[in-house]
Amino acid sequence: MKLLMFTVGSSEPKFGAFVQEKIIDLNEIASLAKISLAPSIQESLKSTSGLSDAEKVITYAQENWNQLPENTVWKEDQIEWLPVVGSPEKIICVGLNYKHHIMEMKREMPSTPVLFAKMATTLNGHKQDVPYIDLSNSLDYEAEMAVIIGKKGKNIKKENALEYVAGYSCFNDVTVREYQFRTIQWMQGKNFDGHGPIGPMLITPDEIENLANSKITLRLNGQVMQESFIGDLIFDVPTLIEAISEIMTLNPGDIIATGTPSGVGFGRTPKVFMQRGDVVEVEITNIGLLQNTIK
Amino acid sequence: MKLLMFTVGSSEPKFGAFVQEKIIDLNEIASLAKISLAPSIQESLKSTSGLSDAEKVITYAQENWNQLPENTVWKEDQIEWLPVVGSPEKIICVGLNYKHHIMEMKREMPSTPVLFAKMATTLNGHKQDVPYIDLSNSLDYEAEMAVIIGKKGKNIKKENALEYVAGYSCFNDVTVREYQFRTIQWMQGKNFDGHGPIGPMLITPDEIENLANSKITLRLNGQVMQESFIGDLIFDVPTLIEAISEIMTLNPGDIIATGTPSGVGFGRTPKVFMQRGDVVEVEITNIGLLQNTIK
Repeated sequence: MKLLMFTVGSSEPKFGAFVQEKIIDLNEIASLAKISLAPSIQESLKSTSGLSDAEKVITYAQENWNQLPENTVWKEDQIEWLPVVGSPEKIICVGLNYKHHIMEMKREMPSTPVLFAKMATTLNGHKQDVPYIDLSNSLDYEAEMAVIIGKKGKNIKKENALEYVAGYSCFNDVTVREYQFRTIQWMQGKNFDGHGPIGPMLITPDEIENLANSKITLRLNGQVMQESFIGDLIFDVPTLIEAISEIMTLNPGDIIATGTPSGVGFGRTPKVFMQRGDVVEVEITNIGLLQNTIK
Repeated sequence: MKLLMFTVGSSEPKFGAFVQEKIIDLNEIASLAKISLAPSIQESLKSTSGLSDAEKVITYAQENWNQLPENTVWKEDQIEWLPVVGSPEKIICVGLNYKHHIMEMKREMPSTPVLFAKMATTLNGHKQDVPYIDLSNSLDYEAEMAVIIGKKGKNIKKENALEYVAGYSCFNDVTVREYQFRTIQWMQGKNFDGHGPIGPMLITPDEIENLANSKITLRLNGQVMQESFIGDLIFDVPTLIEAISEIMTLNPGDIIATGTPSGVGFGRTPKVFMQRGDVVEVEITNIGLLQNTIK
């Protein structure tokens, strides 16, 4: 499934799916189909039936495609995209998880994942504006794959870790470098409001044939700045889930941002920082294209 | 006001106040008094009337003290204490905020607050057990004063910052030192489940005559290990609120843990780490005494 959260005009947030190049309103269709469905991706993940209710609604929509009422099917240009999960309990970011990025940041290879946090106030949707920060001309991008947790778990073993994954999405760990490095903890530079775009959609694992072969690319104004394969991760998704859940309980809706490849603006000579009007895109094969403009 | 969250037996979480040495069930009394009240401290903070509804209920209880039904008034030994706020959007911790602690940790004096995060899964209540971590014998305490945010704000100025404070509480930033220092970011050692006891109560600012004069003390098995005054904070509460809200929107229920004084176990010769059965207490004048046992 390709699931999303969106609004139409000034509507309340809607829970949608991408079907036949259109966006369908799952709750409107669920009420036609008399299927009970949570109001959002996040609430679905928390419910005992998980995403299987959404799947039933999508099947109903496909079987009744030509009879769907007008207000249940939308085109991309009619909607506003919201973060796939709006108020997760946790956003756990992994630093230094691609070898060449560690080299460009002049860091040592970690023996265990380097973790830090973004707050839910950073979350932002596809096509939404990312705030430029007048306080510092050091706004950088970091293309990442996000993992969205679907099931509560503690002390999860690698072997079972993928059972806890609801899906994947593109993530941009937008960073104000000057604030990141002005203390020994990175949190300040990672947590400006709106500096965590995620989307456009949550892609369930069945949609992805071989995650390791998925290419992750960041383009700034159309120019490729970062390019790697998910298979290049030093700590892969099962390893990250094992390591994090050794420490803390993972809950449905929690987001793990798996780290960024080399090519960040800060690591270049001369350094490249994003400016107002810049268009930044994170694309991951089979997972989607997340585009934002700096405003 | 002295507000708390508690359970009785296997009850749902109850919203209470400490009045005349007893714990009163605010929602039970609110329904007698026909006053509308949110079900928890956190929900009250989010509502437009804030904590003023709780205040009305407390006034009603005081005026009708002898007529209150049995199931609305409890003794301390009849209840279980919960964290004052159970699922905040953010727990922002301040590192290195007392001069002597910076010296014992062999760090440099920061020019701006050092921030890091704990996750909501760390929260724990007064008198609840704090998990010992078999993975590492390096379990340390950090007595801190917690600030609970009462109002949404961004770019808050020092001069107005105290308007955004709902109240104060005791906090123990329990830390697994080996995990804290195994990477360059502290998050791993700060985020084991249950390693963030907060309580026993949220104390509203009107209850505290002079916050700077409040003494903060940590006792391990009765022995004083940390002792300082809130006035010794390098970055005081208004400065922290200004600095944090320059970066991110603060929301009702958000917790700021303001840092710990010198005397942590890691800074001692020889080092002192907590063991199973140890009783650890954080006491702050006018704010309360938070006691936990390591299990």
